Amino acid sequence: MGEVRLDPWGHFAIERYEKLFKQFGIQPIDNVIDKLPVKHYFFTRKIVFGHRDFDKWIDALKKGEKVAVLTGFMPSGHTHLGHLMVIEELRYLQSLGAHVKIVVADAEAYAVRRKSRREVIEYGVEYIAHALAWGLDPEKTEFYFQTAHTTPYYRLIQMFSRKVTIAEMEAIYGKLEPSKIMAALTQAADILHMQLEEYGGYKYILVPVGADQDPHIRLSRDIADRFENELGLRRPSSFYHKFIRGLDGNKMSSSHPDYAVFLLDTPETVKRKVLMALTGGRATAYEQRRLGGVPEKCVVYELYMYFLYNRDEDLYKLYRDCVEGRILCGEDKRRAVKLLNDLLKKHRRKYKEVVNSGLPSRVVKVPSF
Amino acid sequence: MGEVRLDPWGHFAIERYEKLFKQFGIQPIDNVIDKLPVKHYFFTRKIVFGHRDFDKWIDALKKGEKVAVLTGFMPSGHTHLGHLMVIEELRYLQSLGAHVKIVVADAEAYAVRRKSRREVIEYGVEYIAHALAWGLDPEKTEFYFQTAHTTPYYRLIQMFSRKVTIAEMEAIYGKLEPSKIMAALTQAADILHMQLEEYGGYKYILVPVGADQDPHIRLSRDIADRFENELGLRRPSSFYHKFIRGLDGNKMSSSHPDYAVFLLDTPETVKRKVLMALTGGRATAYEQRRLGGVPEKCVVYELYMYFLYNRDEDLYKLYRDCVEGRILCGEDKRRAVKLLNDLLKKHRRKYKEVVNSGLPSRVVKVPSF
Repeated sequence: MGEVRLDPWGHFAIERYEKLFKQFGIQPIDNVIDKLPVKHYFFTRKIVFGHRDFDKWIDALKKGEKVAVLTGFMPSGHTHLGHLMVIEELRYLQSLGAHVKIVVADAEAYAVRRKSRREVIEYGVEYIAHALAWGLDPEKTEFYFQTAHTTPYYRLIQMFSRKVTIAEMEAIYGKLEPSKIMAALTQAADILHMQLEEYGGYKYILVPVGADQDPHIRLSRDIADRFENELGLRRPSSFYHKFIRGLDGNKMSSSHPDYAVFLLDTPETVKRKVLMALTGGRATAYEQRRLGGVPEKCVVYELYMYFLYNRDEDLYKLYRDCVEGRILCGEDKRRAVKLLNDLLKKHRRKYKEVVNSGLPSRVVKVPSF
Repeated sequence: MGEVRLDPWGHFAIERYEKLFKQFGIQPIDNVIDKLPVKHYFFTRKIVFGHRDFDKWIDALKKGEKVAVLTGFMPSGHTHLGHLMVIEELRYLQSLGAHVKIVVADAEAYAVRRKSRREVIEYGVEYIAHALAWGLDPEKTEFYFQTAHTTPYYRLIQMFSRKVTIAEMEAIYGKLEPSKIMAALTQAADILHMQLEEYGGYKYILVPVGADQDPHIRLSRDIADRFENELGLRRPSSFYHKFIRGLDGNKMSSSHPDYAVFLLDTPETVKRKVLMALTGGRATAYEQRRLGGVPEKCVVYELYMYFLYNRDEDLYKLYRDCVEGRILCGEDKRRAVKLLNDLLKKHRRKYKEVVNSGLPSRVVKVPSF
């Protein structure tokens, strides 16, 4: 046996525990046994053979700090003597004064051991009953299922993780890191969770997004197919809009604030930004009148198209006037500034009303951190 | 421009939307415009240019099915005209009768854009106020922050994902899939969440586990270091026990039920299993008396050590009797069967009491699915 790789999902027995001391920096238990207020035979018999910072924890316990014990088990079968050993450890640590919390790793059993949700819940409940029967104090012990420690929304994320591979996700998203995997599975839960009864049971979900978000739609549609039987999920619908361009002609984005029009920009700022915007104009007024402008290139034209001219006739007339050389960029921009500032002024008034009256807590719950 | 890779985390403008039709199967919007009960100019002007199954959604809407719209935004800056376009789409879809829900992708902004929690919350609130000011009906609109749609426990998982890499996790765990990444980050949240005020503010956490779980401890200790400032997390303590072996000498596990003693096994089953257990006995009674047994190999001896003989003197005497050839495996096993069945009988009586009185809901919340 060369290198010892510890594998929490594997089943093999580790023969030479001593290697763990050298290879991973686990400390031998010997140096803390004398510190224990009561010496359980698990320690003196070296059934518990190693530790990390257990001495610091004992010191804190003796000083009356808030100390707790957390351990858990994977509910993938009936409770046996191996589990009982852990329960006995907890009973002992609780008798020393520690708060005890036990996680039922149902999310893990579901995702990694691929058990059904019903099985893992039943095994979990059996284990809890055994732990209480063995003597854990129900007044001083907390149990939790990983999935019940949160919400059905989150349970979806956990469940989804079981039926997608990294290869598959990288084919959609490119190179991944844990944060992007989490973000992508979270988006899938965002898109699909309203189909659950807990969230209203809306079976027809439409997702309007920019085209750059289509990878999330594709992933969600694939996932919906895979959970059609288990959760009754259906494929979401979607539609795609073009991006409104920033004033420099690239995608409007808050990371390029000089080229974005923010809804709270002052009229002066709006004026400054729009007057310097990219247009489809020619180099000189003479050429412009002779050749006409190119509205397809012009971001000011885009402002008219997206927000400033709701009537198609107005937009069409503007288009013709531009390509036929009847208007110049300067006057076009000044009119856009006026219309846009009118729009934003009206909006800002309502915005202030909303802010002053406070966001209704029924509409949104703001996270505490 | 060869292959179009859509990147929802990137910023580039997609010039040739048409490619999306061919490459990803997005449908052109033209074929559904006539189905719309009211034609918004975003559609007629092809600002919304493509879709997937939007026609099915419109049909469901017209039939009076429960239809909803879900979209969201990443709160990484102030609200601008690009956001307003989406808000206008939502206002329009709401006016057709759809329920509207908007996700504030704060988990994503935190993890992928690496904004601070405070920033993303502020930007999120601003956006919501703009959406209401623009005319979304607060009675028919729901907003949610991804992290507030669940619990602080889950927020930890999201936050942790930002400060670990796949390379780092694979160094600890070996080859990973999304389910294992989720499971590992969930374990880290299990181990560390009690330090949050929301969960009691226990700053000294001890994690008693089998040595195979040390990878989770190492990951959690690394993560605690990285969140020392942001969340005030401290390294957890841990200690490690040996595995109790199954009756065949390998780790006791419910996946090998014939070699595990389950706490609900009948006395007959316990007897059958223990009588066939691996011992450290010799080939014949004669040799056993002459050479003595090898308790280190014997799983029955392990039963005495872990559970049946709590007094060290008893265990020591058994050890001496064995190695000095004074007892044979048969009698040793029969005594073990008796002691183990006594222990389990007493335990089962209490177990039934617990089950009959029902698990206190204060002690555990059982997931609904």
